[in-house]
Amino acid sequence: LERLLVNPLEAIVGSGYVVTDREKMQNYLADETAKIVRPKPANDLVLVKPSNAREVSEILQFASKHRIPVFPRGGGTGLAGGSIPTQDGIILSMERMNGLEIDTANLMVVVEAGVTLETLSNKVSQAGLFFPLHPGDQNAQVGGLVATNAGGSRALRYGVMRNYVKGIEAVLPTGEILNLGGKLHKNNVGYDLLQLIIGSEGTLAVITKVILRLYAKSGATATLILPYENRHDALSSVPKILQQIGLPLAIEYVEKDVVERTARHLGEHWPAKSGNCYLIVIVAEESREQVLSQSTRLAEVCQQNRALEPLYAESKRDQDRILAIRSSIYFALKSETADILDITVPTAELDNVISLIEEIQKEANVILPIFGHAGDGNLHVHIMRDAGEDINRVEILRDRIYRIAIEAGGVITGEHGVGKIRTGKLGMCLAGKEMELMKSIKRIFDPNNVLNPRTKILV
Amino acid sequence: LERLLVNPLEAIVGSGYVVTDREKMQNYLADETAKIVRPKPANDLVLVKPSNAREVSEILQFASKHRIPVFPRGGGTGLAGGSIPTQDGIILSMERMNGLEIDTANLMVVVEAGVTLETLSNKVSQAGLFFPLHPGDQNAQVGGLVATNAGGSRALRYGVMRNYVKGIEAVLPTGEILNLGGKLHKNNVGYDLLQLIIGSEGTLAVITKVILRLYAKSGATATLILPYENRHDALSSVPKILQQIGLPLAIEYVEKDVVERTARHLGEHWPAKSGNCYLIVIVAEESREQVLSQSTRLAEVCQQNRALEPLYAESKRDQDRILAIRSSIYFALKSETADILDITVPTAELDNVISLIEEIQKEANVILPIFGHAGDGNLHVHIMRDAGEDINRVEILRDRIYRIAIEAGGVITGEHGVGKIRTGKLGMCLAGKEMELMKSIKRIFDPNNVLNPRTKILV
Repeated sequence: LERLLVNPLEAIVGSGYVVTDREKMQNYLADETAKIVRPKPANDLVLVKPSNAREVSEILQFASKHRIPVFPRGGGTGLAGGSIPTQDGIILSMERMNGLEIDTANLMVVVEAGVTLETLSNKVSQAGLFFPLHPGDQNAQVGGLVATNAGGSRALRYGVMRNYVKGIEAVLPTGEILNLGGKLHKNNVGYDLLQLIIGSEGTLAVITKVILRLYAKSGATATLILPYENRHDALSSVPKILQQIGLPLAIEYVEKDVVERTARHLGEHWPAKSGNCYLIVIVAEESREQVLSQSTRLAEVCQQNRALEPLYAESKRDQDRILAIRSSIYFALKSETADILDITVPTAELDNVISLIEEIQKEANVILPIFGHAGDGNLHVHIMRDAGEDINRVEILRDRIYRIAIEAGGVITGEHGVGKIRTGKLGMCLAGKEMELMKSIKRIFDPNNVLNPRTKILV
Repeated sequence: LERLLVNPLEAIVGSGYVVTDREKMQNYLADETAKIVRPKPANDLVLVKPSNAREVSEILQFASKHRIPVFPRGGGTGLAGGSIPTQDGIILSMERMNGLEIDTANLMVVVEAGVTLETLSNKVSQAGLFFPLHPGDQNAQVGGLVATNAGGSRALRYGVMRNYVKGIEAVLPTGEILNLGGKLHKNNVGYDLLQLIIGSEGTLAVITKVILRLYAKSGATATLILPYENRHDALSSVPKILQQIGLPLAIEYVEKDVVERTARHLGEHWPAKSGNCYLIVIVAEESREQVLSQSTRLAEVCQQNRALEPLYAESKRDQDRILAIRSSIYFALKSETADILDITVPTAELDNVISLIEEIQKEANVILPIFGHAGDGNLHVHIMRDAGEDINRVEILRDRIYRIAIEAGGVITGEHGVGKIRTGKLGMCLAGKEMELMKSIKRIFDPNNVLNPRTKILV
């Protein structure tokens, strides 16, 4: 491809922004998916770095014309291989598109696709406002966050990425630049193409710029750790919190072994001494008094449900430390992980679902570390490599866990997405007609099937 | 059509549920659209009342086969003629589909399309939970609320209907029954067909059942009226509230003449004595202390922005009365209204936009009552009949106001939707390629174009 592509691409983006040297594109060939299930990158790839939507449009027109696959690339923090270039073609990195403009009067930010979540959160905070999304990896880029409809722990109060996105500039594979939505809270002009592009994982259009809703900063926050002897008591506290107390910023569920191991991995220690499993609850309100009052009521509700003595962290340092441990579980386990699952079930089913997974654990004599976003029913289950380097064994365990989730009214992926490693399993939770509609939509947007094509093409 | 349809339809739904007598279908021929712009119903219509999705499926298969237009019908509370049967065909009333099941453990409700918002809100409240949506007319039915992505005053904190909908059962015009989503907060399995159906105004599928997210009840609420001498001071307070205080349940904007007229219409009186225009702010928090504290801070922010002495309503009766006046403006003005517009702009543009509309008012020597959801930029402008019975004059005024909204970064409809009266104007805010994509999506879902077809077909 090098011979065919370099001149036309350089004519579009300039000579410094087309990379053909394989060594120099190593960071663009993988994502954070565990190695055993991670798709292999193709051999013949050219990396291009456009600086604006017009350049993206020209690249896509060229690619469509010549039927060359294009793989849009953000921060590469995905866990389902969604951005891995699995066919010979073009890697389209958005890293140079990093404009950001905060509109404090409208509580909105206009931000280009290549801006990282870390930069976004920091700049918004410096402007005195708050962008709540916290999917765990701060290196994610905005385009990817929208393309994968990212979630994380703060989805409980503020919703997933979909809830923040009010406008999208995106380029169709055929080159047209769409400008959808705006700095608008309400918008009912026709079918919502913006919602369709959110979560389409780079298969319908290349997202180049978005408009996100911002919020006022909370006046005060606190992080509670509520230790429990057993999981049932911990998880059955969650509906009671949601019914009686309202919406904390986050309610996370972790277990002792995993969280202590992660703390050691970070050179930290897990502050709770008692208990076998924990709810981590982040309370955010307007004032310290309100935080204290809500925390007290929340602790009462949990203690009535057999929580042990709660830990209360108020300083930013202590709170950050707890959140860092929670957010690093995947990375602490990653080297020994064969696959991290992302099932989502109705919140009240979590206890039952984990019990059923535990039965598999005993029966198959494997360890299946579990943690997740208890407030929103999103559970991450690790299939560890000691389940065998044998990929078939991993797949059998994974399918059993998928079936448990689906029987409980859930789905196989809540926030990580389908990517390239779960396309073959979508039939477990989608009907034939739904998949047919999705394939038809793909054909409308991408008639030449050049945009982020999958080896097993589903959508 | 009667001869062709009655027997097959009675075979599907039973003989009591097919209506051919025009007198008995009067309530199904119009909606709440002002008379002068309201589309005329067709002459040859049959009304059918299915009781479940299977019956809906059979009706739609029959209609698709014979290319007979089908007009899904909910509460008929729309303001854009969306449900009016404008071609000879079938009116599909969802009124018999009124099952409702509250799942307190998951804070979700499973509700059929024909349940009214009033019933839904009351039953949820009786179960100790809260469904926030408040679009104004409690006779709206759930199917219509989803089909039109209803908004209203509480969208500021809790979002529009789209934010509540977690699952949809819908029937395609070709008869397939889709079951999308579930009692799930996170769900990333493929393209989001559920989001595409929300707001599609009965043109892609017939919504038969939905799963909605519920919330804990607030411990306490209060309603503040903040009087201002002038509109600029009132509207420029809004960003300050949102930046400094966080999210009240609602921030509404009304003007003296209109609100006093509405109060008289209801046999009430508007409680504020001073000021020419008002912000109505609803504060909802966990406790009376918190409500008082937030209200005090909010009043301070507004008074720094030249608000006059605020009124504070705490009793349910006083609060309900204020909300009732606000919600009845349309009905108070309706008999003299030629069209009610629903433009939405970035919140910080409201002041500028209203000033430009006021210029039109002076120039054309007409009265254009204005009110709206100041917190989310959604403005309702009445074009009164004294603008002339001449529909052309109404259209000219309307187009000028649309252009003002679009130039301010807004759209022609925020919550009322396109319906059948705004299809011809969508080109003002959608690009050709966007409309082309929408038409292609319509063809995928409804290849025979039988579902809620428009006379001027746009989507």
